[in-house]
Amino acid sequence: MTLDEALALDAADPLRACRARFALPPGMIYLDGNSLGPLPADAATRIAETITAEWGGDLIASWNKHDWIGAPQRIGARIAPLIGAAPDEVLVSDSTSVNLFKLLAAALAARPGRSTVLSERGNFPTDLYIAQGLAALVPGVRMVTVGADEINAALDDDTAVLMLTEVDHRSGARHDMVRLTAAAHAAGALALWDLSHSAGAIAVDLDAAGADLAVGCGYKYLNGGPGAPAFLFVAEALQPALASPLPGWFGHADPFAFEPVYRPAEGISRFQSGTPSIIAMAALEAGLATFDEIAIEAVEAKSRSLSQAFIGQVEQRCPELTLASPRDPAARGSHVVFAHRQGYPLMHALIERGVIGDFRAPDLVRFGFAPLYNGFADVWRAVDVLADLLDSRAYDQPRFARRSRVT
Amino acid sequence: MTLDEALALDAADPLRACRARFALPPGMIYLDGNSLGPLPADAATRIAETITAEWGGDLIASWNKHDWIGAPQRIGARIAPLIGAAPDEVLVSDSTSVNLFKLLAAALAARPGRSTVLSERGNFPTDLYIAQGLAALVPGVRMVTVGADEINAALDDDTAVLMLTEVDHRSGARHDMVRLTAAAHAAGALALWDLSHSAGAIAVDLDAAGADLAVGCGYKYLNGGPGAPAFLFVAEALQPALASPLPGWFGHADPFAFEPVYRPAEGISRFQSGTPSIIAMAALEAGLATFDEIAIEAVEAKSRSLSQAFIGQVEQRCPELTLASPRDPAARGSHVVFAHRQGYPLMHALIERGVIGDFRAPDLVRFGFAPLYNGFADVWRAVDVLADLLDSRAYDQPRFARRSRVT
Repeated sequence: MTLDEALALDAADPLRACRARFALPPGMIYLDGNSLGPLPADAATRIAETITAEWGGDLIASWNKHDWIGAPQRIGARIAPLIGAAPDEVLVSDSTSVNLFKLLAAALAARPGRSTVLSERGNFPTDLYIAQGLAALVPGVRMVTVGADEINAALDDDTAVLMLTEVDHRSGARHDMVRLTAAAHAAGALALWDLSHSAGAIAVDLDAAGADLAVGCGYKYLNGGPGAPAFLFVAEALQPALASPLPGWFGHADPFAFEPVYRPAEGISRFQSGTPSIIAMAALEAGLATFDEIAIEAVEAKSRSLSQAFIGQVEQRCPELTLASPRDPAARGSHVVFAHRQGYPLMHALIERGVIGDFRAPDLVRFGFAPLYNGFADVWRAVDVLADLLDSRAYDQPRFARRSRVT
Repeated sequence: MTLDEALALDAADPLRACRARFALPPGMIYLDGNSLGPLPADAATRIAETITAEWGGDLIASWNKHDWIGAPQRIGARIAPLIGAAPDEVLVSDSTSVNLFKLLAAALAARPGRSTVLSERGNFPTDLYIAQGLAALVPGVRMVTVGADEINAALDDDTAVLMLTEVDHRSGARHDMVRLTAAAHAAGALALWDLSHSAGAIAVDLDAAGADLAVGCGYKYLNGGPGAPAFLFVAEALQPALASPLPGWFGHADPFAFEPVYRPAEGISRFQSGTPSIIAMAALEAGLATFDEIAIEAVEAKSRSLSQAFIGQVEQRCPELTLASPRDPAARGSHVVFAHRQGYPLMHALIERGVIGDFRAPDLVRFGFAPLYNGFADVWRAVDVLADLLDSRAYDQPRFARRSRVT
């Protein structure tokens, strides 16, 4: 692929107009939307409206007047089409970690006599930590982790819930949600999917897969801002049977009746806990508006094209790098990792040149492709900088040496 | 008190300059800061900086560059002097409900062989619901509730934790934190205080009382915005022994090491769970800046003067109303309730005239006094409108009739 070919692909891209929906810094090639989505162009204005006109002008009356009270369900319904859910199956609330706890505890209670949370050894740490926390709290509950290829064999009549992240945060490997959900059901277990690295980048279809439960993150491909509220999904048929272990007043059937005994709201609302941050909700709602009039299938198609183009360019121009993601795009999410023994300084040299990805120990450089704002020319230019750094060894400098950092 | 006398009191008020720290709508007398604090004058600008320059301009690098990663501890340390805590005893995170769950579970685990959460029958519902949720989840755990005057007698050798809200959300009655904490300790229990209706309005002194645990709300007197992140307090000596039941990755000793097994951070940080909303944190930080250079003792002194003046004026000019809060200011928080058989239409007529309080079933009208922005002239004018409504019976109109609403 030449730069001209990349520019021609961008010109023919049906999603090309979406880039204007973001306020990306000029000259930056941002390939880290899998960590933190960028600022939507109109988010600052939308959030300022919530702050100044609603909070500032109408104060407490805004809970009704501006439907703050309905934000968790309203914004959940905007996420639903991105993940193959019905509008009333999705709720925005709390963090991914807290939502995992709610759904794991609810799943265990719905499978009496079973005590195992089955997960994958390489699952994202917070998923494993939360299951460990639940096991430490509730006698008898245990977490079992296995390798990705051992999941089927590990499902047994003690498995209450199979908890998997659809797209691996390191390798980008994508599980077969249909097959694994069916396997969980065949063993009598529920299936809980973490969509943090899926939602907004690939065409998830929870209802088609028969998935029971899901959680996901608002601050990655959904562009909801740093630490945005997370979401949870409970399949409609399961909702009446499930109970939240964190029954805060916002999940009560009538919160402002101030009844002394908890009585769960109907439907997905029972999974609310405390009062949600309305300003954070406004930011997430602005992030979700970047998906207006876009079909998630078109997003996934472009994701595959971008990541395939990237792999092809890197393998052609940067032979020092070794692909550490699945080669088959159907077996991958929307990010790609390569191994390089100097991965850390290489990534920090890239960042200095305006190509933003991230590093994952011990030796992985990770690049996320967000179809709404990344294009083929970004792919070409990122690989061009990468190839230049590798050829010149310009990354091999003390200022790029490893130190503790967050990303 | 005449209006001139009220104006003279305002002119002599050492906190009078603080009102300019808020963007209150012109003409509104806002006596509902106990439900939702108003917008600080510079909050929109401060939050916009976080959104535009930090999220928009520096994206993922902001976690380090703008110390997003340190926000929960940094903002917690700003709350500490308002509640008599050391800076490293307070953390901002999640909602009050979720924080209650964390600390209740941690307290039960720290008192093996004891299974009772003792609370008050009239405690705020979310506190009771969360304890009910924990009892439903963990076999053996139970919640016992008693009347306020029965707490001492109910403490026994099965009480793991005494969970009380310092200031009652309805009556405004304030518990004696020193005495009840000592009683809990004498019974071998821990004391957990909900400061939602205290923090920022009265001079709480957790360390002097020997309190073990506390939670509180960011969106009332702390002016942190609707649904602001909440806070939690764990006494320093207890921190190493307590474990969070919601051990998300932000509470890990080294979150970005991505270790498969949870290892709690040192100190208060272990009570973090998932990724916090940085935009909501920025709003709370702007809210806390309204307390800059103010001693909480001066806030409490003014709170008492305001609420005493209000009670005096109402009892003089509105004999139809019956005080339903303690008369002794030392036994009260910063809000006052009166009973009136037409409380609902009365409050909504008041709101229409720009005096904002709220209604609590069956017959209570509630007025909160926030010393940073409420003054004696507000008290005089609010009672003047109230007296006029009562004299004219102008509240007795169909448009003020009861309907379901949030506040």
